[in-house]
Amino acid sequence: MSTPVFLLFGATGDLARRMLWPSLFHLYCDGLLPAGLRLIGSSRSALENAAFRETLRSNIGKYSNQPELDVAALARFLETIEYVAVDVGEAAEFQRLADLINSYPAPELLCYVSTSPSLYKTVARNLHAVGLARSNTRLMLEKPIGHDLASSQDILNAVGALFAEDQVFRVDHYLGKETVQNLLALRFGNSLFEPIWNAQCIDHVQITIAETVGVEGRWSYYDDAGALRDMVQNHILQTLALVAMEPPASLDAAAVRNEKVKVMQSLRPLTAHSVQQHVVAAQYVAGISGESRVPGYLQEEGAVSGSRTETYVAIQAHIDNWRWKGVPFFLRTGKRLETRYSEIMVQFREVPHNIFEGAQGALSPNRLVIRLQPQETITLELMSKRPGLNQVQLQPVALNLSLTEAFQRDRRRIAYERLLLDALHGNGTLFVRRDELEAAWAWIDGIHAAWQQVGMTPKTYPSGTPGPVAADRMMEQAGTRWHG
Amino acid sequence: MSTPVFLLFGATGDLARRMLWPSLFHLYCDGLLPAGLRLIGSSRSALENAAFRETLRSNIGKYSNQPELDVAALARFLETIEYVAVDVGEAAEFQRLADLINSYPAPELLCYVSTSPSLYKTVARNLHAVGLARSNTRLMLEKPIGHDLASSQDILNAVGALFAEDQVFRVDHYLGKETVQNLLALRFGNSLFEPIWNAQCIDHVQITIAETVGVEGRWSYYDDAGALRDMVQNHILQTLALVAMEPPASLDAAAVRNEKVKVMQSLRPLTAHSVQQHVVAAQYVAGISGESRVPGYLQEEGAVSGSRTETYVAIQAHIDNWRWKGVPFFLRTGKRLETRYSEIMVQFREVPHNIFEGAQGALSPNRLVIRLQPQETITLELMSKRPGLNQVQLQPVALNLSLTEAFQRDRRRIAYERLLLDALHGNGTLFVRRDELEAAWAWIDGIHAAWQQVGMTPKTYPSGTPGPVAADRMMEQAGTRWHG
Repeated sequence: MSTPVFLLFGATGDLARRMLWPSLFHLYCDGLLPAGLRLIGSSRSALENAAFRETLRSNIGKYSNQPELDVAALARFLETIEYVAVDVGEAAEFQRLADLINSYPAPELLCYVSTSPSLYKTVARNLHAVGLARSNTRLMLEKPIGHDLASSQDILNAVGALFAEDQVFRVDHYLGKETVQNLLALRFGNSLFEPIWNAQCIDHVQITIAETVGVEGRWSYYDDAGALRDMVQNHILQTLALVAMEPPASLDAAAVRNEKVKVMQSLRPLTAHSVQQHVVAAQYVAGISGESRVPGYLQEEGAVSGSRTETYVAIQAHIDNWRWKGVPFFLRTGKRLETRYSEIMVQFREVPHNIFEGAQGALSPNRLVIRLQPQETITLELMSKRPGLNQVQLQPVALNLSLTEAFQRDRRRIAYERLLLDALHGNGTLFVRRDELEAAWAWIDGIHAAWQQVGMTPKTYPSGTPGPVAADRMMEQAGTRWHG
Repeated sequence: MSTPVFLLFGATGDLARRMLWPSLFHLYCDGLLPAGLRLIGSSRSALENAAFRETLRSNIGKYSNQPELDVAALARFLETIEYVAVDVGEAAEFQRLADLINSYPAPELLCYVSTSPSLYKTVARNLHAVGLARSNTRLMLEKPIGHDLASSQDILNAVGALFAEDQVFRVDHYLGKETVQNLLALRFGNSLFEPIWNAQCIDHVQITIAETVGVEGRWSYYDDAGALRDMVQNHILQTLALVAMEPPASLDAAAVRNEKVKVMQSLRPLTAHSVQQHVVAAQYVAGISGESRVPGYLQEEGAVSGSRTETYVAIQAHIDNWRWKGVPFFLRTGKRLETRYSEIMVQFREVPHNIFEGAQGALSPNRLVIRLQPQETITLELMSKRPGLNQVQLQPVALNLSLTEAFQRDRRRIAYERLLLDALHGNGTLFVRRDELEAAWAWIDGIHAAWQQVGMTPKTYPSGTPGPVAADRMMEQAGTRWHG
């Protein structure tokens, strides 16, 4: 009998406090954690077990979305957690971890590395140094892995030298969202959608991640990345892959990711020519966010004047394969925008001929709208007859697929609950495979290269607005407009 | 300026009391009747205007579905109605009608003949005899028109000799139902459905009209007809035509009915061989309906022993054209069944390959369910992901297209309101054209002929049950089952 062990580096960090510990607690309450699981938190801070558990108690109390916090369960949960202070840069300190873990019978380790990505190589090496890089050890790594294809491969290679691909679970928490998984259910659990899920029937797709926040005190970190690396390379391209992929033969990790990577690899590279027509980069300037005046990107604390980093990017992407010939995928993300929301919007073509001509009201094209933020909802927009006598009047009706009665019984799960559980069970379907990551970086690098060739200077947009005018103009030229 | 005149024969009959007068009153309240419209009620009974209006007052009070009866409007409405006693068999009595109508400036007559169909020819002739069969006169005729193709053509010819086809409005009140019209809106107002509305994507269609009542004291009338003539020939085939027709180029009466008649004409005739496999006829025997014991068909008042008339019929129909190759249309109707409901159910094919295998719960095929009775609703049944963590679990969700918020503002219209209004405006789209009627009768006659050849004896089913076992067996052999 082996002992499952969950080890979390960065146990006092922001992600751990807000997401990971509450998620583990929820899984614990529902009896979903593997029997006998040992939990170890680790960070640099010198903390006693008792003090660490107290921190967790208040954090979980604050961030759990249980309708009523199960205080008794929380007390029992905290007792299963050990704290070990480790400076991950110090190989010697890993021995304490190894000693603890090896004290369990036949330990089977899942190690979540929620540290700076610059430490991933070090953590992998130091785990190996103390004999913890066993064939039954799994690593969970948070994004971003690298800064471009080359730096990403540097990490991938170093980690890959010690851990096989199926031992590495690269997290993109968008893949843990209910509605993203429901996209798979809708596409492949219904015969209604797949026959029309192609260029013949779909006009275009929009994927949006709009934030209202600015750089939140992390100017220099953000300035190294920019919107393209920070959001498009991971969340948006992962979402795109699920929307656009061919039907996998099964839900196996290999089958699903084989299809996803084909999408990434079929993304049409941007050139110096097309980047000017199909990509809009912009930077926020001062404006009103909510009720408050907020500074522009170049006036933020720590800003270096003259930065050309984009805080907004909109891309008209194309997937060069049979299914998606001629269908634009409009991708956009930005900070300091008017409203915070993420959504996938699939717009079907207009009816080829309107027999309701003369009847009042134009026909809106059908849309499938999958909201990921702030609430997760799925809506199908159809035209239906308006009850009444005079003329045949049609009006749009929005059918909510996710808020039906059937779905209101359960607490909404945090995306990390699903991902932690899958990694604990060794199911890699919802994690990013190495070749996906490389294909995504290759495409993103192509945009950066094209920008460099043309000497890209970001446009500007006032904080609290829907984004730069140039992005609206790009849509107009494509004969459509942004949704939502 | 012409004066619109509405003349109703059978003004004290059942249909008039329950449907036609209340419908006219509703149209009046909503200001939808043509300006200056004169209303004339006529029947054999010798009644004073005042007495007739009093009858209407109480009938409309009883049968109006206004949330609160508008008593003042009702009083004003009744004042617009004249009563003229006419024995439609007596040509001379029509003169009183002509005198009244001709007293209006430039009268434009819509004459609703809600009498026994055996009188349609007589009414047409007598209208003509007194000069009321003008080119601007319109006739509304209730079903049934004839008893088979020959008797139907006898009426059609006689009426047709005096009135052009576009002056004759043959009523099938199913065509006035909101949900039936919404079927057109769904099919042709959305690009989502038409690409999958064919044999490649649709498994089969079911059309059901189930009644709980028996023959209700009209045994000998019913025994002449039977379920096939009473329900299939009109309501069910009309509904079928709207489900199956090709997209019309417009909503014009000609365009829509050209497409409908093509469906009727493409119905595969039943033969002595196929009628035994694809048609089940049955007669109810004694049983429990609701809470009460009820007699069998042959024990009803007025029954003649040995009748082989079917009170139930189920048909596996086929439409021989490109779109519907191999798609069965299961049609059924019956009296004394377990529940009263009418519906159209379009079942899409199963997904070609289930990638959720191993996940709990089988995949239900997608269905579009259009209920016409007792409530009018439209539901789209999809599979969606059940929120939760363990396995990917799919579950059916039913999306209600008709009871969305948008549709709850208005009072539900009586089907006759729409039809009366359309006839008043001369719009024939929702009425049955002569060639449709003939094609329907030809197909029905074929079944009767095949029955005669094989010496059909109806099966039996106990009152209050879902129908004969043989009908379930027919579905089993087709690899499916009845819905609802």
